Amino acid sequence: MPKANAFYAQSGGVTPVINASACGVIETAAKHKRHIGKVFAGRNGIIGALREDLIDTSKESKKAIRGLMTTPSGAFGSCRYKLRSLEENRAEYERLIDVFRAHNIRYFFYNGGGDSADTCLKVSQLSQKLGYDLQAIHVPKTIDNDLPVTDNCPGFGSVAKYIAISTREAALDVASMCETSTKVFILEVMGRHAGWIAGAAGLAAEQAGDAPHVILFPEVAFDEARFLAKVQQTVADNGYCVIVASEGAQTADGRFLSDSGLRDAFGHAQLGGVAPMLANLVNSKLGFKYHWAVADYLQRAARHIASQTDVDQAYAVGEAAVEMAIAGKNAVMPTIIRGSGERYRWSIGEAPLNRIANREKKMPKSFISRDGFGITPTARRYFEPLIKGEAYPAYKNGMPVYTTLKKESVPKKLDTDFSI
Amino acid sequence: MPKANAFYAQSGGVTPVINASACGVIETAAKHKRHIGKVFAGRNGIIGALREDLIDTSKESKKAIRGLMTTPSGAFGSCRYKLRSLEENRAEYERLIDVFRAHNIRYFFYNGGGDSADTCLKVSQLSQKLGYDLQAIHVPKTIDNDLPVTDNCPGFGSVAKYIAISTREAALDVASMCETSTKVFILEVMGRHAGWIAGAAGLAAEQAGDAPHVILFPEVAFDEARFLAKVQQTVADNGYCVIVASEGAQTADGRFLSDSGLRDAFGHAQLGGVAPMLANLVNSKLGFKYHWAVADYLQRAARHIASQTDVDQAYAVGEAAVEMAIAGKNAVMPTIIRGSGERYRWSIGEAPLNRIANREKKMPKSFISRDGFGITPTARRYFEPLIKGEAYPAYKNGMPVYTTLKKESVPKKLDTDFSI
Repeated sequence: MPKANAFYAQSGGVTPVINASACGVIETAAKHKRHIGKVFAGRNGIIGALREDLIDTSKESKKAIRGLMTTPSGAFGSCRYKLRSLEENRAEYERLIDVFRAHNIRYFFYNGGGDSADTCLKVSQLSQKLGYDLQAIHVPKTIDNDLPVTDNCPGFGSVAKYIAISTREAALDVASMCETSTKVFILEVMGRHAGWIAGAAGLAAEQAGDAPHVILFPEVAFDEARFLAKVQQTVADNGYCVIVASEGAQTADGRFLSDSGLRDAFGHAQLGGVAPMLANLVNSKLGFKYHWAVADYLQRAARHIASQTDVDQAYAVGEAAVEMAIAGKNAVMPTIIRGSGERYRWSIGEAPLNRIANREKKMPKSFISRDGFGITPTARRYFEPLIKGEAYPAYKNGMPVYTTLKKESVPKKLDTDFSI
Repeated sequence: MPKANAFYAQSGGVTPVINASACGVIETAAKHKRHIGKVFAGRNGIIGALREDLIDTSKESKKAIRGLMTTPSGAFGSCRYKLRSLEENRAEYERLIDVFRAHNIRYFFYNGGGDSADTCLKVSQLSQKLGYDLQAIHVPKTIDNDLPVTDNCPGFGSVAKYIAISTREAALDVASMCETSTKVFILEVMGRHAGWIAGAAGLAAEQAGDAPHVILFPEVAFDEARFLAKVQQTVADNGYCVIVASEGAQTADGRFLSDSGLRDAFGHAQLGGVAPMLANLVNSKLGFKYHWAVADYLQRAARHIASQTDVDQAYAVGEAAVEMAIAGKNAVMPTIIRGSGERYRWSIGEAPLNRIANREKKMPKSFISRDGFGITPTARRYFEPLIKGEAYPAYKNGMPVYTTLKKESVPKKLDTDFSI
């Protein structure tokens, strides 16, 4: 393919290391100037392309681009915007191609989860139909760790590390106070459909009796009586009980625990999470004093304690995406392959997008302990290497130094607006 | 005073660095073997003394004691147990003296906040009345930073650092998503009566427009209309709004915002925090998509990102307490004195306990911006040095190495039980 520009966009919920993937894409593209001209980034994700609102990454200093390695969140902006099917809204896909053509974009790097893999695939398919040469490569990213084929997803390892550490730390707090005060502590973590993050909290335990004592996975139907019995027994045995609950914890009939059915004074649904709901249950049924925490965005943005393995892999998938594009690949995604030896090794593989799009990988049964409240040694062996290494950012005056980009716009070439 | 043993106890809510004070006490006592025999620690705080349930710290290895420098929570156990007044329950104080006499304890180091300073003073007074020689020294500790006389309190700096970092990180997350998704993020932080922790979140901002855009202090009466107007204006100006709310935020008539008045299906008060209450308000009145987090124990146990200044000061007050005791001081507390120069310097001072006990230091008016929603440059100059330096713990397999003590019991000498 003759030299052309590239388009990069961040999609969906951001992670502590998605910017490391951006850095991998931009730095690697710069090494291939014979093939790739400029890298344009979508302002706020794919809607930046639809609006022809492109950021010229060549205007950023090399230092700023390198700074992406240690900066959480989406430096170019992300969005929650799922393109509909080709049949429903072909105009959107055509608009993308129009913008790409106007800016001589022949490389499309889309950094996201399952939905964006699907979009990436469709863009690739339509460009072929329209006879527009485009290499569409998906760059994996999701804290939910639910993409198929790849052993794990960049973004997950850092969140797993943060949650495992936070669980261990909070557990020490409860243990030291439980004689006269808090007996039950509940930490709510992300993971609407899969329990990977909740499972990683299990790394906080080193030996029998260690916290977390109860993990609630979306994969295991919540049974109130069994849950309460387990909490009561744990307090009897250890003096306290630490519970890690996935936000996706649900009953056998598929009702989320967070959907409490409560209404406030205005008649609105109570916006409580799983943690306060469980706290209320434990207190009203067992009478224990409790505390609860909801980590929410804190876990997803905690670059200050990112996993080195995760940062390395996030960069590597960005780098590999560019190399695949230059090698003429299309509609593929770099994957992470785990080596088979005792010692953890990983390498980059490749998967066609039709094996990635719209498939969700849940926690395997072999990862969940028989009673449904913990993780198995198999799960531990899977999780442990993913949180290894501390990729600390630089600090100034006690605060981490995070990079802010200039984000200069690329002059528009089309005289058409496109409302999304 | 002839050579005698020492008693050390941790009191009230624990901190990321209270164990550094324990380390300071134990290591310094070991340097003064001519004066101090063994250091006995109360199992679960002062109730360990009342129950004659003492831990022999001499049975721990030097390495384990050093490990306290990087271990959060209370390694010997703490408690929420306030001794009543001498008139109400003189028996408790007499029991303490009985246990001290039985174990030849002549040094009393009590590591806590305002309540324990009061207890420490009373123990000192009663021992004098009873003619029992005892040096009672209070070792300051509280994440709430509300002790008088001392410039700041060990424990606060690390929590301040964690909250400031978490606020900056979560704000980057919201900023990158706000175009199509979350527009308002609310972080609830500790501080029931004083807004020091909430105020420290202000360090996340570097320039105008930076998060946090709204801080809710217990010191400033919550005004719903003004709050909503500020949030709306901030979203209009920046595209998003980050709010840090103290758990102690309250209305002009002294009602906590967290006391929502809601009842669950069982008729129990809804156990919501300030953050979900504010989220509900913002959503119902302004319609913005929101996220909220409640840091709870996570902030108080986050040793993984403790402030080096805080760790140093926590050790120093433990060390100074022992030196004061050996110098014959009684009913005093080591304080932290801030130097007057541009560059932050600190030294250890001394305050009589009657100037410490039962006095609460709130945020000064000069620290809160005129509109009541932020901090002033004066506050920033105060906070900044307290969060300086990253006192990282060691890691193994991706997890911080925290010390667990053996906590061997001292054989009992009294044949009496004491129920608390």
